[in-house]
Amino acid sequence: MHPQRLVPARLLLALFVLATAGPTGADPLPAWRDSATKQRILNFVTATSTPGAPTWVTPTDRIAVFDDDGTLWPEKPRMQGLFALQRLRAVAPTRPDWQLRLPFLAALELGPKYLQEATDGEVLQLLAEAHAGRSAEQFRGEARSWLESATHPRFGRRWSQLVYQPMRELVAHLRANGFRVFVVSGGSAEVSRELVELALGLPGDDVTGSQVVSRLRPVADAAVPRLELERQPLAHALAEGPAKVQAYDLLVGRRPLLAVGNVHAGADIELLRYSQGNRVDGPPTVQLLIQHDDFEREYAYDEPDMASVNAANTSGWLLVSMRYDWLQLFAGN
Amino acid sequence: MHPQRLVPARLLLALFVLATAGPTGADPLPAWRDSATKQRILNFVTATSTPGAPTWVTPTDRIAVFDDDGTLWPEKPRMQGLFALQRLRAVAPTRPDWQLRLPFLAALELGPKYLQEATDGEVLQLLAEAHAGRSAEQFRGEARSWLESATHPRFGRRWSQLVYQPMRELVAHLRANGFRVFVVSGGSAEVSRELVELALGLPGDDVTGSQVVSRLRPVADAAVPRLELERQPLAHALAEGPAKVQAYDLLVGRRPLLAVGNVHAGADIELLRYSQGNRVDGPPTVQLLIQHDDFEREYAYDEPDMASVNAANTSGWLLVSMRYDWLQLFAGN
Repeated sequence: MHPQRLVPARLLLALFVLATAGPTGADPLPAWRDSATKQRILNFVTATSTPGAPTWVTPTDRIAVFDDDGTLWPEKPRMQGLFALQRLRAVAPTRPDWQLRLPFLAALELGPKYLQEATDGEVLQLLAEAHAGRSAEQFRGEARSWLESATHPRFGRRWSQLVYQPMRELVAHLRANGFRVFVVSGGSAEVSRELVELALGLPGDDVTGSQVVSRLRPVADAAVPRLELERQPLAHALAEGPAKVQAYDLLVGRRPLLAVGNVHAGADIELLRYSQGNRVDGPPTVQLLIQHDDFEREYAYDEPDMASVNAANTSGWLLVSMRYDWLQLFAGN
Repeated sequence: MHPQRLVPARLLLALFVLATAGPTGADPLPAWRDSATKQRILNFVTATSTPGAPTWVTPTDRIAVFDDDGTLWPEKPRMQGLFALQRLRAVAPTRPDWQLRLPFLAALELGPKYLQEATDGEVLQLLAEAHAGRSAEQFRGEARSWLESATHPRFGRRWSQLVYQPMRELVAHLRANGFRVFVVSGGSAEVSRELVELALGLPGDDVTGSQVVSRLRPVADAAVPRLELERQPLAHALAEGPAKVQAYDLLVGRRPLLAVGNVHAGADIELLRYSQGNRVDGPPTVQLLIQHDDFEREYAYDEPDMASVNAANTSGWLLVSMRYDWLQLFAGN
């Protein structure tokens, strides 16, 4: 045996291992049950990202958008509501007026039970008043600390460990195929971006959502005049329904090809519909609507008017059943 | 000579070439005159991006923000005003009311001369009315086509060739050192992001600015209901002064370390001041204020109240003279 021959042989072996064990070999979505839905998702990603395919889409237009509460992580009770609640309770002794006003009265009296049913608008109002007067930096630091320490009242996990495993896999698979992933929160963009950075490693500036009013205030300093943003007790823009599309468009300015939302007060209908494009002959798109129908592992709830599911059926969106389509709910469970 | 020796010798040579001709060897800012200002910029980038340095900043916080009109490219006449003007002229026969109303009357009568002096608010109003009724896609396509064909009335160049060469170099140097670069336009975010993508290769979603109101409208389609954003004749939010900081914060959510603006109606003062941080012991920051003092190569104009320059002097910002600090204005000139 000639020793010189060893190198090419090893090289060939290495190439063989690379070719067979690469991303094309492994299932990129192991937490998803094998189904037509899963196959549609995989086909869509392949069709839009394979060079030379007739349905190939330029990377600039390869865009996916996700709702957050109820889509990336559980929305019962609302994460942002729980964050507001601990501050509301701390501030409450100085605010006797909260004992007489909704939604403050209800939040302070009922706590997480109230947040289980509160609307996005009510949660945003709680958040705006709870942290009024904080600087943007203080607020962000407090949100980050809370996210790193608080646990979900039912699951006992931190919020960063509550990202649905199938969504984590989908985000990773999209990014591995040149998609940029944006998040539009019905809650405050500032809180959502902290959790998205922490739990999914996406850049915080790829997150938008509802807004609380801030104003610039001067900071005392001997040398130079300094400024900081001070949170006001006012909700400004609620990113629900059509406003969710507007918030998305202001951030991205290009239609998404894939949109993921969940059944909850019809809040994601317009975003999913918008992602279908305005032309019959447009690029391939996929819309996923997650149904919370898993009362054992998570929660089971629906809309009284079935608006989201009806829209899905009319428009050809993919209905995702948490109970049947997801083999695993959270990482490690 | 042993042929086997050739390989290591070539390898050593290649390594030597790589080590000496790399970014550390060449001047990253050749269009900038050697000066204390240039040195401060270079030192700032080195200080914040060199691992192990006491002033090193994590890549997540390595953020730079640029104004666009007058900072990245000339603002006389306003690029977005010229884009609105060609559409205003086309639509004018159907809008006799414009003959009686400012700023439409002035724009139609005086054209680029009026746009030379118009405020950001007036330009935004012209743009909102000119393209009212267009879908977001139509509008973007028209903006892109116009940017690829229209030439500046004085320089005879397309707008993508009007990015100031020193700014182009600064953006590239920042990105090469792990900075993310965001743009906040006093004009409409939608138009600015097209030019930023086209001319600087930055992602369009890293641009924000003023807003025009849009509403969702249904598109007729046999199969599924489709939606598009329809531009309304209403300016919504003008990103000037404090509102520029708010627009920036909604997009990014983290303070910039470097902010670049120009002398014009004091519109960038708050953004630059905001970038100085709210703590004396914060990370290193740099603020650049560009002065249009080059009547030969560009324009010479100032603020009657000198507000921006006074703020620069009070706060230790770097004043950049186009005339003296920039050896080259545009690429190839």
